[in-house]
Amino acid sequence: MLVVHNETSTGVTTRLADVRRAIDDARHPALLLVDAVSSLGSIDLRHDEWGLDVTLSGSQKGLMLPPGISFNALSPKALAVSKTASLPKAYWAWDEIVEMNKGGYWPSTPNTNLLYALSEALDMILERGLDTVFARHQRWAAGVRRAVRTWGLPIQCADPAVYSPVLTGVVTPVGVDADAIRKLIHDRFDLSLGTGLGKVRGRMFRIGHLGDCNDLTLMAALAGAEMGLKLSGVALAGSGVQAAMEFFASHPAHERLQAAA
Amino acid sequence: MLVVHNETSTGVTTRLADVRRAIDDARHPALLLVDAVSSLGSIDLRHDEWGLDVTLSGSQKGLMLPPGISFNALSPKALAVSKTASLPKAYWAWDEIVEMNKGGYWPSTPNTNLLYALSEALDMILERGLDTVFARHQRWAAGVRRAVRTWGLPIQCADPAVYSPVLTGVVTPVGVDADAIRKLIHDRFDLSLGTGLGKVRGRMFRIGHLGDCNDLTLMAALAGAEMGLKLSGVALAGSGVQAAMEFFASHPAHERLQAAA
Amino acid sequence: MLVVHNETSTGVTTRLADVRRAIDDARHPALLLVDAVSSLGSIDLRHDEWGLDVTLSGSQKGLMLPPGISFNALSPKALAVSKTASLPKAYWAWDEIVEMNKGGYWPSTPNTNLLYALSEALDMILERGLDTVFARHQRWAAGVRRAVRTWGLPIQCADPAVYSPVLTGVVTPVGVDADAIRKLIHDRFDLSLGTGLGKVRGRMFRIGHLGDCNDLTLMAALAGAEMGLKLSGVALAGSGVQAAMEFFASHPAHERLQAAA
Amino acid sequence: MLVVHNETSTGVTTRLADVRRAIDDARHPALLLVDAVSSLGSIDLRHDEWGLDVTLSGSQKGLMLPPGISFNALSPKALAVSKTASLPKAYWAWDEIVEMNKGGYWPSTPNTNLLYALSEALDMILERGLDTVFARHQRWAAGVRRAVRTWGLPIQCADPAVYSPVLTGVVTPVGVDADAIRKLIHDRFDLSLGTGLGKVRGRMFRIGHLGDCNDLTLMAALAGAEMGLKLSGVALAGSGVQAAMEFFASHPAHERLQAAA
Repeated sequence: MLVVHNETSTGVTTRLADVRRAIDDARHPALLLVDAVSSLGSIDLRHDEWGLDVTLSGSQKGLMLPPGISFNALSPKALAVSKTASLPKAYWAWDEIVEMNKGGYWPSTPNTNLLYALSEALDMILERGLDTVFARHQRWAAGVRRAVRTWGLPIQCADPAVYSPVLTGVVTPVGVDADAIRKLIHDRFDLSLGTGLGKVRGRMFRIGHLGDCNDLTLMAALAGAEMGLKLSGVALAGSGVQAAMEFFASHPAHERLQAAA
Repeated sequence: MLVVHNETSTGVTTRLADVRRAIDDARHPALLLVDAVSSLGSIDLRHDEWGLDVTLSGSQKGLMLPPGISFNALSPKALAVSKTASLPKAYWAWDEIVEMNKGGYWPSTPNTNLLYALSEALDMILERGLDTVFARHQRWAAGVRRAVRTWGLPIQCADPAVYSPVLTGVVTPVGVDADAIRKLIHDRFDLSLGTGLGKVRGRMFRIGHLGDCNDLTLMAALAGAEMGLKLSGVALAGSGVQAAMEFFASHPAHERLQAAA
Repeated sequence: MLVVHNETSTGVTTRLADVRRAIDDARHPALLLVDAVSSLGSIDLRHDEWGLDVTLSGSQKGLMLPPGISFNALSPKALAVSKTASLPKAYWAWDEIVEMNKGGYWPSTPNTNLLYALSEALDMILERGLDTVFARHQRWAAGVRRAVRTWGLPIQCADPAVYSPVLTGVVTPVGVDADAIRKLIHDRFDLSLGTGLGKVRGRMFRIGHLGDCNDLTLMAALAGAEMGLKLSGVALAGSGVQAAMEFFASHPAHERLQAAA
Repeated sequence: MLVVHNETSTGVTTRLADVRRAIDDARHPALLLVDAVSSLGSIDLRHDEWGLDVTLSGSQKGLMLPPGISFNALSPKALAVSKTASLPKAYWAWDEIVEMNKGGYWPSTPNTNLLYALSEALDMILERGLDTVFARHQRWAAGVRRAVRTWGLPIQCADPAVYSPVLTGVVTPVGVDADAIRKLIHDRFDLSLGTGLGKVRGRMFRIGHLGDCNDLTLMAALAGAEMGLKLSGVALAGSGVQAAMEFFASHPAHERLQAAA
């Protein structure tokens, strides 16, 4: 079973521990494979504790690096199964890489530059503390949702229990082409917002709040979105920018409180 | 006579051509020396046409580079006078550098890395066009002043005819320590605003809008300033952020209009 | 049929056009797949003219970049066959990438930083001229072989007609551990030479001369190798360093001759 | 009294402690000012212990950085004298910078990028150990002199007691234009050697061995010089390259010995 930890197209976080429990309750032998590309380093994920079999991620989201590396974490069960599995596999043919990694090498030439960058990024994250980093994203997400609600626009994710801490999907009114709004915002304000994917293409856009951002880069994104929505003729119920400023001003980041205490 | 083209501490632009005219009308032999550190590449300046004798500037403002290079433009009159002037001089002892520059060299080791960067920055500016770059700064300045007026706070520069296109000084209410506001904004929102210098220390802060910025980086700065002012107990007449968004949305940049036309 | 254009482990260049001809003469329907990882940009290779079906290469050799990108060139026949082939495939499942590349996109996030670097590297190569670049490598290879022969050591590639222009394999005397020599050279002179692979492990080392080098970086490598061989007790017939200097001094590079002419 | 610690134009090291002693013996009140641009970080220098009053240096030599920063170390006596000295001064007007440095600031905008780089370079040097770094340069210098002597060419510095550890001046035979040799070496081998300055212009060239080099980069430089000398028709008594290889191979660097022990 392959699940996406943070569903980029909708802004939904999957409850991985519950999925594991459901598989176990059903006494099903399926491996639990998790796509953590946009969640690793930004949303809590416990590969061992939650019984994940394969967690795959990459360098270019929460790890704050350019794209160019992806990697897998594997459970002993996944490793054992892969030895007997008869399905064709390429990226998930791990034997050779596991063997060579023991000596610090790879079967093919790795992206050495990004490995140095990854080491630095991990130092930055661990120095800050994972809990602090996760809390930062939760707070940013709450501020952005405050803005979207104030605009009077629906958040794509319908269930508050699984809101994504790293992106928020904004549903545009019926009859309005979300991609035309995105284009206007890009042309006028140099801001590139995520497009709706699949079924929701043209019906929404996405505001990301992961990795290397802060309150003011988010205020910039919200200002660009608010100006673009208005210029596109979308009637907004209120100023999301104003609401987000009120939220961020009245909710100091956890880490700042700690530093002050 | 040494004048500062763009007065950073107050946000005032000097009318250089008028200064030249006044010197000439008085038939005074004084050289006209111009500090263009924060104006070159962002505000129109015509060394030859305006009869400037020495224009000095550096890499780290409108030329969008790290600090590390400064340079002088010289009139024939300045060069001639320097040969006979008996005043002690160091940075303005030009003979040796003028002589060696003819062959592409310097009397001391130049900052070669920044010379490469300068070449690239000049290409970027000239590709965009100086008129367009100057107009960008005028528009950003107008948007920021709109915000400051909406807050109900005075702009440090009292004469609209000489508003600086590259920075705006914001005067804080009597009894409020502007530097305490700046510190709060820095601590809470990672935004570093310029301090009041000299007589206006503690009475104002400065918002820069020069070099490599765009509408949204300015919106971020205004949002940080507005949140910080409110958190510091300053009563604002209105939302400057809102006013700036209205201004930027209703006044497309000259260059965008051209690109669309 | 998969052939390696430049065989890194032995220093042999495959005569690709002859391989194509042999396949055609046998009226065999096999695709001709070419691994050009260490040859592209350093050794002449004509994908269309020589009837290659798949040419694969990467960023980190003749293109002078860090590792991190690989790519395939495809013949219409390869594309057609891939649509019906029932063999499992991953890296060679091209449909999706071909489709998205048409619009300038990729099905997954590409290594954007290296794409910018690749564009610059290609400009450098094309500005210099492919013929000049190929001739540089031939000349470097000739100089290095001169050194190896002067040492009295065999060149791994037995047939001069297929000497590699980008690396030379040096066979060490029987009873001498080539990897121990490599380690000594690395420890004493900070020079990392290629190891023998497979059957020739411990029996040879490799001197690379591809991509971003010049006569003097090769002289440095040869000096490190010569010192290391002597320190390891290998009796040398003569000084390869001396021989290489004589060769490079008496054979000016094609491009220099042109520049002087 | 201003003395140069490492005389770049001749390859002579000044015995600073002796100079200090001579001044003191003469009971002369002169300040001892030392130009340590090319020595700091490569040759032992003890500002306090040797009683230097002003030591000035820069980023671009032994500190292994691009050019762009210079700095002064000052004795209490130098600071006191500067307050009453009536000579014009600019770079040596220290009051303001000393005052602002106390709080971590500068009176003018510093080259912030190079300050970060300087911090890293100092970490590298101190991690290696100053004694080790000084010994490296002494060993490189000995190897290069071995080469020059083997060529049968005079070393510009006549007194072995004051040989520079960071550069060696090579005197060319009478009637041979050293700058023409330098140009040939540059054109043919992409190697830029230092020119003779002042009285020795055209009579010598300089080989640098300071900062970020190793045995093999020096072998490359010696190979370029040897080929260039021969191509210029200079009759050499022997191969300096051969002699340097023998020296470097038979004299392991102190640090390597330690690492192996």
